[in-house]
Amino acid sequence: MWTINTAIVASRVVSAVAPSCRRFSVISRGVMAKSKFEYVRDFEMDDTCLAHCWVVVRLDGRNFHRFAEKHNFTKPNDSRALELMTRCAQTVMTQLEDIVMAYGQSDEYSFIFKRKSNWFRRRASKFMTNVASQFASSYVFYWKDYFKDQDLLYPPAFDGRVVVYPSNQTLKDYLSWRQADCHINNLYNTVFWMLIQRSKLTPAQAQERLQGTLAADKNEILFSEYNVNYNNEPPMFRKGTVMIWKKV
Amino acid sequence: MWTINTAIVASRVVSAVAPSCRRFSVISRGVMAKSKFEYVRDFEMDDTCLAHCWVVVRLDGRNFHRFAEKHNFTKPNDSRALELMTRCAQTVMTQLEDIVMAYGQSDEYSFIFKRKSNWFRRRASKFMTNVASQFASSYVFYWKDYFKDQDLLYPPAFDGRVVVYPSNQTLKDYLSWRQADCHINNLYNTVFWMLIQRSKLTPAQAQERLQGTLAADKNEILFSEYNVNYNNEPPMFRKGTVMIWKKV
Amino acid sequence: MWTINTAIVASRVVSAVAPSCRRFSVISRGVMAKSKFEYVRDFEMDDTCLAHCWVVVRLDGRNFHRFAEKHNFTKPNDSRALELMTRCAQTVMTQLEDIVMAYGQSDEYSFIFKRKSNWFRRRASKFMTNVASQFASSYVFYWKDYFKDQDLLYPPAFDGRVVVYPSNQTLKDYLSWRQADCHINNLYNTVFWMLIQRSKLTPAQAQERLQGTLAADKNEILFSEYNVNYNNEPPMFRKGTVMIWKKV
Amino acid sequence: MWTINTAIVASRVVSAVAPSCRRFSVISRGVMAKSKFEYVRDFEMDDTCLAHCWVVVRLDGRNFHRFAEKHNFTKPNDSRALELMTRCAQTVMTQLEDIVMAYGQSDEYSFIFKRKSNWFRRRASKFMTNVASQFASSYVFYWKDYFKDQDLLYPPAFDGRVVVYPSNQTLKDYLSWRQADCHINNLYNTVFWMLIQRSKLTPAQAQERLQGTLAADKNEILFSEYNVNYNNEPPMFRKGTVMIWKKV
Repeated sequence: MWTINTAIVASRVVSAVAPSCRRFSVISRGVMAKSKFEYVRDFEMDDTCLAHCWVVVRLDGRNFHRFAEKHNFTKPNDSRALELMTRCAQTVMTQLEDIVMAYGQSDEYSFIFKRKSNWFRRRASKFMTNVASQFASSYVFYWKDYFKDQDLLYPPAFDGRVVVYPSNQTLKDYLSWRQADCHINNLYNTVFWMLIQRSKLTPAQAQERLQGTLAADKNEILFSEYNVNYNNEPPMFRKGTVMIWKKV
Repeated sequence: MWTINTAIVASRVVSAVAPSCRRFSVISRGVMAKSKFEYVRDFEMDDTCLAHCWVVVRLDGRNFHRFAEKHNFTKPNDSRALELMTRCAQTVMTQLEDIVMAYGQSDEYSFIFKRKSNWFRRRASKFMTNVASQFASSYVFYWKDYFKDQDLLYPPAFDGRVVVYPSNQTLKDYLSWRQADCHINNLYNTVFWMLIQRSKLTPAQAQERLQGTLAADKNEILFSEYNVNYNNEPPMFRKGTVMIWKKV
Repeated sequence: MWTINTAIVASRVVSAVAPSCRRFSVISRGVMAKSKFEYVRDFEMDDTCLAHCWVVVRLDGRNFHRFAEKHNFTKPNDSRALELMTRCAQTVMTQLEDIVMAYGQSDEYSFIFKRKSNWFRRRASKFMTNVASQFASSYVFYWKDYFKDQDLLYPPAFDGRVVVYPSNQTLKDYLSWRQADCHINNLYNTVFWMLIQRSKLTPAQAQERLQGTLAADKNEILFSEYNVNYNNEPPMFRKGTVMIWKKV
Repeated sequence: MWTINTAIVASRVVSAVAPSCRRFSVISRGVMAKSKFEYVRDFEMDDTCLAHCWVVVRLDGRNFHRFAEKHNFTKPNDSRALELMTRCAQTVMTQLEDIVMAYGQSDEYSFIFKRKSNWFRRRASKFMTNVASQFASSYVFYWKDYFKDQDLLYPPAFDGRVVVYPSNQTLKDYLSWRQADCHINNLYNTVFWMLIQRSKLTPAQAQERLQGTLAADKNEILFSEYNVNYNNEPPMFRKGTVMIWKKV
């Protein structure tokens, strides 16, 4: 079994990583020594986002299936969790620069930077790590405002990516793609959990029942068996949440 | 003045971003519609880290000068803050995959993934966003364990980067570079805050006093004026913190 | 002094490159052996050009200042050289795929691939090496058609780059930039060589005379001293050459 | 049908590419105008090769199957063609900077730049376009020295790529991989063309005969049916050609 060994003095460290390397010279001469090592900065690669393009950062909760279970999220949608996500996205938009819009659904959120943003000289790594870390710290910070009766058991992670879109049309299609994803998943989940919660099917039975069904079939099941008109479900569940700036 | 407008229904959204685009077609036909938009995935660029190389993710606190002031960090070093950083790094090493070592000092932490890691197929964006978000959420989660008398006022962000090192020597030099940085800054700060706290200089006066001094000069000031032997300062302040795995 | 050693048998080769590596195992077992080494393909990095963008490949003659001198190019413009360049560009457009336009001036040529080209899956390396090599081989192949009294003394190289433009406006501005470059250089060179050829100034004297002059000044020198109206100079010299496809 | 229209005056050009763009403003104000367009340089992306790594440029003849047929290359190996390739590689090594070694076989050649080369600040595009264009122009330039009775019918292109190897071992394995490729293809081709040339099989019959055979089977066919000991075939065919620098 392995555990972490916190060594305050850094000598003899790298040998643990790469056992064939013996010496890890202790630094003792200040500026001289530092300048000798500064060549290592040359290994940083440029990751500038193409100029004049929309920059999108999308975050996804890491292992949120397990996270939702451990924290007793309501199925198929937990309004507290969705509203907490939106609170985090709002913090990201307020604290970081040049974000013109955000779109969220389920455990994901997309942030759109303005085309001519020059924040951090458009370096992709800066965009995505600032968004991911601000979002994650906000998630813990604001948790108790939304989950009053449920403790946060452990701090979650989010993985992110940067995608660059060269035109308004491709950006719109990106948003339509995420919204279509929301629609399809939510319609499926709405029926799936009805079958389980109301008709007492097992997850496997519910999955089997839904195999091969089209959107119309699912709407029909909801309506005929549960008297639910899918279009009357809350828009936040069906379409996701959008945030834009407005003048006040 | 501007504020954020949270719109649950996503229609008419993109027009706010790009006023020349009128229509944002409402999705209503499920799978068909989604497949029509899926071409937008082709805009994601590959960011695989070169095979067989050490992958380093380094995080830095965003605007931590201000953060330290707002939260009354002890100067020049706040042990609570350093230990909280290390607690977060430990969580990162435990929760994520393939990290063999971490090195931290001040408001930064470096994480080293094993050379042949194939976590997330070595995609740089995955490495850095998982590290940044797990670190940031842990920072808030564990805050109260270290800052018992100081509330956390707002959730902090961290910016990150990925650097790839092709050999053991270049990785060692990277670590030496960060440790030399720790040494130089800490020696400077130790004298700087002595001049202010003990000799009641203003920050401007302290800065002027230290201008052009070498390491030996600073050591001499500490010893002759404050009877401080710099080498007896806590190693965590002078050299930073290293974490490696050990068998238990 | 060093010369090239052509060894037909590849054994013991790498040791010359990296003296610390002794063995270069001779291949003898066919498929088995090859599959063992195929992991080296994983080191190839993706260099896909962003989708839906204009892809521009620009070539420049390598050391063409020297090349022009060695081959007695007429100053300031050699029509044979310009026409040979255009002949090569025409071959590139005809032999390669998806090039919609080319623009050339001096010893450079730009090729524009259509926005939705999927040639070689939009890999930048394929675009630029095919263009550079087809252009260079054509330069030698067609040399004698344009330089009837001047032998080609050695085979020239061209260096290239790929630039991606996300909109029509940025592509237009790219072309305007190269054309502005043509205009500025050609106006300068036209006066410069007048001063040398007609007024018998040395290059240093001509350079000094032109230092700090504006376009209007140069036009004035041409008109008042040499009775040359710059606007009547051949358009190929002043504006460069454009090639587009036309229906026939 | 389409042909190329060479327009010397560049006005009204871009409209042909992008019909919705009407104006292509004629440049007339020199420096002022140029500076206005220079922002387009910001769209160039950095493509620096990772420091301290071996940089390999590999070229392949474009459509050389067809090229070989049109120029009546001897089957399975044409010594003239192989020697011309090596002559071109020699020119590349002599004319360009920092190439320590080259390896060639069939219609491909690999060039290895020294680990610490800083030629063109290690930009991948410069490495590959210089190699590709110098190789291609040399191919035409030296053609007649090797093909005395065969005219060059058209100028060939070569496509290239850059791959970066972080260690001596991975570089060696790269070379072993290419040499294994040479061995496998040459053994196959040697038997394949024996079956056709000596036994008068059709290509389809020869292919069928060889389907599923191992290296040992192919050696056996050569020996038992044609009295050929494969190991006595010319090393240039079996193993390829290596070039390194030697002191003279």
